[in-house]
This record gives sequence, C-alpha cells and structure tokens, in this order.
Amino acid sequence: MASITEITVRYAETDAMGVVHHATYPIWFEIARTDYIKNIGLSYSEMERGGVMLPVTAITVKYHTPARYDDKLVVTASITRLTPARVEFAYKLTRDGELLTEGTSSHAFVSSETFKPLNFKAAMPEFFEVLTHSLIENSS
Amino acid sequence: MASITEITVRYAETDAMGVVHHATYPIWFEIARTDYIKNIGLSYSEMERGGVMLPVTAITVKYHTPARYDDKLVVTASITRLTPARVEFAYKLTRDGELLTEGTSSHAFVSSETFKPLNFKAAMPEFFEVLTHSLIENSS
Amino acid sequence: MASITEITVRYAETDAMGVVHHATYPIWFEIARTDYIKNIGLSYSEMERGGVMLPVTAITVKYHTPARYDDKLVVTASITRLTPARVEFAYKLTRDGELLTEGTSSHAFVSSETFKPLNFKAAMPEFFEVLTHSLIENSS
Amino acid sequence: MASITEITVRYAETDAMGVVHHATYPIWFEIARTDYIKNIGLSYSEMERGGVMLPVTAITVKYHTPARYDDKLVVTASITRLTPARVEFAYKLTRDGELLTEGTSSHAFVSSETFKPLNFKAAMPEFFEVLTHSLIENSS
Repeated sequence: MASITEITVRYAETDAMGVVHHATYPIWFEIARTDYIKNIGLSYSEMERGGVMLPVTAITVKYHTPARYDDKLVVTASITRLTPARVEFAYKLTRDGELLTEGTSSHAFVSSETFKPLNFKAAMPEFFEVLTHSLIENSS
Repeated sequence: MASITEITVRYAETDAMGVVHHATYPIWFEIARTDYIKNIGLSYSEMERGGVMLPVTAITVKYHTPARYDDKLVVTASITRLTPARVEFAYKLTRDGELLTEGTSSHAFVSSETFKPLNFKAAMPEFFEVLTHSLIENSS
Repeated sequence: MASITEITVRYAETDAMGVVHHATYPIWFEIARTDYIKNIGLSYSEMERGGVMLPVTAITVKYHTPARYDDKLVVTASITRLTPARVEFAYKLTRDGELLTEGTSSHAFVSSETFKPLNFKAAMPEFFEVLTHSLIENSS
Repeated sequence: MASITEITVRYAETDAMGVVHHATYPIWFEIARTDYIKNIGLSYSEMERGGVMLPVTAITVKYHTPARYDDKLVVTASITRLTPARVEFAYKLTRDGELLTEGTSSHAFVSSETFKPLNFKAAMPEFFEVLTHSLIENSS
C-alpha cells in the first residue's frame, strides 16, 4: 500500500534561494508517514497513548528539483521493511507527476516512558498485524 | 536589568523575499528570555522540573527593517511587569546599533501537570524573589 | 468576506510542553492570508511577479487554549483595513468551534526591487479594486 | 581541517516527545557548514554575490541519542570530497564528548541565475583553491 498526501508549499518553507529549504522535506515525509498510519486505520496519537513512540533513527533525502512557494505537491509513503523492533518508510515527492525528491526514514519502537527499545509486536499485537498487512499489500 | 543575546542569522531562517521570515523573531525573543532567566541565576529547565511552565499568552512584534542571512544581531530582553500570576517581557533587536525589530511577550505561570494557572510566588518563592529583584534593577 | 483554511497540526509544530509552539501560529495565519487572496481570485505569486511584495510590519497574537498534535483546526482571515499603502488582516483559529487563538497582521505594499513603499492602487489598480471589494463585503 | 560550532538547543527545536525534532539537525549541519567556510577564510554570502549557489543534493542523518532543550552541543564539519562540480561534507554532533548524531550532505555548484550546474574551479578559482587546501589538511 502507498498513502498519498497533498502539500501546498508555505511561504515560511522557502529560503533566500527562492526555493523550499532542504530541511523542510523531512517534515513533509513525517506528515506522509502519519497519513500512511491513518490510512490503514491506525493512529500515531493512539500509539503514543499506548506507551509506544516511534523516534527516527536515520533519514536519507535526495533532492532532484526544487519545490517553490505555493506549489501543489504529492508525497507517497510506503513501508519497505518491518520487524517487531523497527520499521522503514520510503517517500516520493512529485509535482504534476515529476519526481522532485525521494527519501527514506528508519524508526525504532521505543517505550514512551523509558525511551528504551521494545518489542512492538508484543506491546501492541493488533497494531503490528495491521502494519504487517499493509506491507504485504505493498509488495502485491 | 536587561540581558543581551547574540544571534547569527541562519540560512533556514530566511525566506523567498531574501530576508528573515517574520515568524522567526518570536523564536529569537524566546532565546533572549531564556538568557534573561539564566543571567539572573535561574534556569527555565529547573522551573519545569519544579512543576511550573510559562506558556506564552500573547505576543506583539513590530518589524522596522529586515534582518538578512548571516547578520550578527543583538537581542535585549527585560521584564516590564511581574505578578504572582503573570510576567511580561520586552525585546529589542538591533544590528550594529540600528533597531530592526521590537516585541513583547506575556506569560502565565501554570502547573506543568494540569496546565492550570498557579501562584508562582507561593509555588517557588525564591525563584519569584530573584525575578522581582531583576525587575527592580530594571527601573533603576 | 472571510476565508476559511483547514490546518492539521504537524508533529514538528509541537514543542516539549506537548502543545504547538507559539511561533507556529503566525505561519498558519500567513497560510490563511494566502487563501484569502486566492479566494477573491488573486494570487500572491502573481503580485510578486508584478513587482510588489507585502512584508509584515507588525503582528499580534493572543493565545487562549493550546492546539495539539494532529488537531484539526480552522483559521478564518479577513481584511480589517486597506489603504493604497497598507493592509491589515485579522485571524481567528478554532477547534470544533472553540476559539483557541486570535491574531492580526499589518503589511506595507513595497517594491520587490527596492523594498521601498509604493502606492499599490496605482501599481496594480485591478488587484487593489478586488481587495477593496472583498473588504466591503466584510462589513456587510 | 574540521570546523567546530557550538549550538545551544532552542525550545522551539523540541517536539512533543520532549526531545529535539529530527528535522532540526540538517539546519544545525548547515550552520556548521557555514562556519567551516568562514573558518577557511571564505564566505557563503560572497559566493552568492559571485553568482554561485551551493544547493543540497542529498543528505543522510543517523540519530543515536536525542538532544534536549538547553543542551550545549558541538558540531564538527569537514569536507570529505571535492570536485569542480560537487562537494560533500560530513558532520558529527556531540554533547560532553558523546556522539549523538552523524550526518552527511552533498552539494552541487550551480549558477544563482540559471540554477544550472557550473564548474566552480573555473568560476571562482581562488575560492576553489582554498577549499581544496582545506581538504588536504583534512587528510593529514
């Protein structure tokens, strides 16, 4: 499965080069990730209330063509890898079908109290199953 | 008393007009506020650990001349009003002595658990006395 | 006339108090301002290409109740004052009908080349007429 | 050569997890990159005035341990690769000597008018020589 998120570029997201500042893209990818989780019927807020957080352990971004103020963009997100301890997402950002930016993010499932790694499959089994199912749909 | 904070403008803080985006200034004022509190020997982190937060209830900013990338700026902060329930700060931002921006912020002392207003003088009397003393020095 | 803008709170917009950071609201008001201009059939990008910029000369924000991650918010924008040299906007931000935040912004019409004030009515008369018309609809 | 940049974490840079939001680190790396260029006697502003921009073409960040509000951090930057068309930087972010975050950024030299790639060695030969010299010092 891949979620689809629409973004309109904010003026505050541009910089003195006249284009979107490069540190903005990880923020958009995070929105796309949230939408992915919503689209499969889950909620990141609910996960936090369940005592689980999903901090970012690594990101990569490749910038092909800059986005500009007021551009209408589309970000797709999909899960590329899932274990009880970790999950990885991939993102593609397009404007009128043209690929502008690509990225990935890696995450660990941790306790919101101790910030220590936990076994997400054991902590929230139904949540984990829904995530797994969305991944299977990915590859089909 | 007035604290003095030095800021160097970051590229990410500029926008497509080629100048600093206007929403950046309240962030700088917050840094100046933190420095004011440090300069009188207190610590905002310590206040938070003591169960007190100081959310912003109002801000005003007047923009006279834009700041630009890599500018060296000076922000002064001072307390203009203090009660057991509230505190108000004033800020001046200059570049080479020229006033670029002015602002104010109003804050309520609230419980970090309930987010409800509290009497800061009663909750942290020593903290409150130091704040009061800094205000007296202001007016002298 | 009042424009209506829907915002979903981003994780990056929250801070360690667990609520939206106060410097985020002027960014949302800017989005609402852009939408207002679009809704009356104009375009801020087009204005920039026409050699006119609309920098912010002052803002005020009053914070009543904090917004939180993933909240669905509504921002309304309206013009409260318009002259050939200046324009003022007012904003209201609500969640499920409850007023969370209010604000205003003041702007000068300036040349995008010189950054000097200009007479917007003379520079872009049709644009100015549409803005004026939207203001008249405000008061009715 | 490696430049050294000191950062104090701003409240606005934290998020609802109580730690620094992950999209903040590329902004700090950019500050470190600017400092690197200053430390070898060059200036990014001057480069822009010379008609050359240095947009980011790729970044990677690995997050080991979160930074928190008011932390005093040190970011080191160094050049790991340089050609007339491209330059790559590496960054390490530490707190009291502990490595919190690592990253890289890749950049293309482009014309600030056309945004097209250019030969930086040909466009600004003295600038390029100083950059090259700093790289040689790196490896020694």
